[in-house]
Amino acid sequence: MKIQTLEDLFHDMIQDIYYVEKKLVKTLPGMAKKATTPDLRAAIEDHLEETQGHVERLEQVFEILGKSPKAKKCEALEGLLTEADEVTSEIKDEMTLDAALIASAQAVEHYEIARYGTLCAWAETLGKDDVVDLFEKTLEEEKAADEKLTMIAEEEVNPQPA
Amino acid sequence: MKIQTLEDLFHDMIQDIYYVEKKLVKTLPGMAKKATTPDLRAAIEDHLEETQGHVERLEQVFEILGKSPKAKKCEALEGLLTEADEVTSEIKDEMTLDAALIASAQAVEHYEIARYGTLCAWAETLGKDDVVDLFEKTLEEEKAADEKLTMIAEEEVNPQPA
Repeated sequence: MKIQTLEDLFHDMIQDIYYVEKKLVKTLPGMAKKATTPDLRAAIEDHLEETQGHVERLEQVFEILGKSPKAKKCEALEGLLTEADEVTSEIKDEMTLDAALIASAQAVEHYEIARYGTLCAWAETLGKDDVVDLFEKTLEEEKAADEKLTMIAEEEVNPQPA
Repeated sequence: MKIQTLEDLFHDMIQDIYYVEKKLVKTLPGMAKKATTPDLRAAIEDHLEETQGHVERLEQVFEILGKSPKAKKCEALEGLLTEADEVTSEIKDEMTLDAALIASAQAVEHYEIARYGTLCAWAETLGKDDVVDLFEKTLEEEKAADEKLTMIAEEEVNPQPA
């Protein structure tokens, strides 16, 4: 697809984030399995469930827009996951591994926060009010997941010296 | 370097973000040149100057930690820039191109926000108070750059219908 209009850009980014959410559904179980801190493992598992909901929400978006669901490979996510894999596969110490998992997950969350923020703005500009709400719901869940990870890091994985 | 401790992780991430900042110093001039909206071009140019400061700040960090400055290729940034390039090279319409540039720049900002947030937390845990302040300054500048881009998008590039 040649991108020429804001609407083309908008559809292109939806395909990108659809790839991301579907890939995360496959990737998060492995991350949860690596985690040692029970709250971290639970947070990743909870976010896996949310992520399945994000995939479904995007399929609703495709339907509302009259398009068939299509995923476009996201090079940014691939890079994030390559880095995450490289780092976490080397570490033996459990707390260090958990710290690395949190950092990797937060980098992915921030990618999604940037993309859903843009999608909300573009949907509003394009007057597609019926999908703004769907993007906003997911955006809020991504932000909450990021904050949850910060909390677990601060309280359990890498607490600050007293 | 085999990563085994939080300190190893910390040094690894500093090398990653050093690569990012140095690469952005080379990439941002091209993005500024593509931008049409004067405020967007100015914002990218201002952020280029800040980014040069971030490189210097990281060199201070290396010095404080007694390490020589070393950059480690960041696959996530490479992915972000590949996507940015692919999308922005296709677009002829000026406002659409500016919207794409803003989206790409914000995805990069969010990567940096995630990384500097993690670096601040790890520096505190490791008791490296003398570098926390340096990371925090950069983190605030990245957040401000992201907000500035949102403002330009909302007010000038893709305003919402009245």
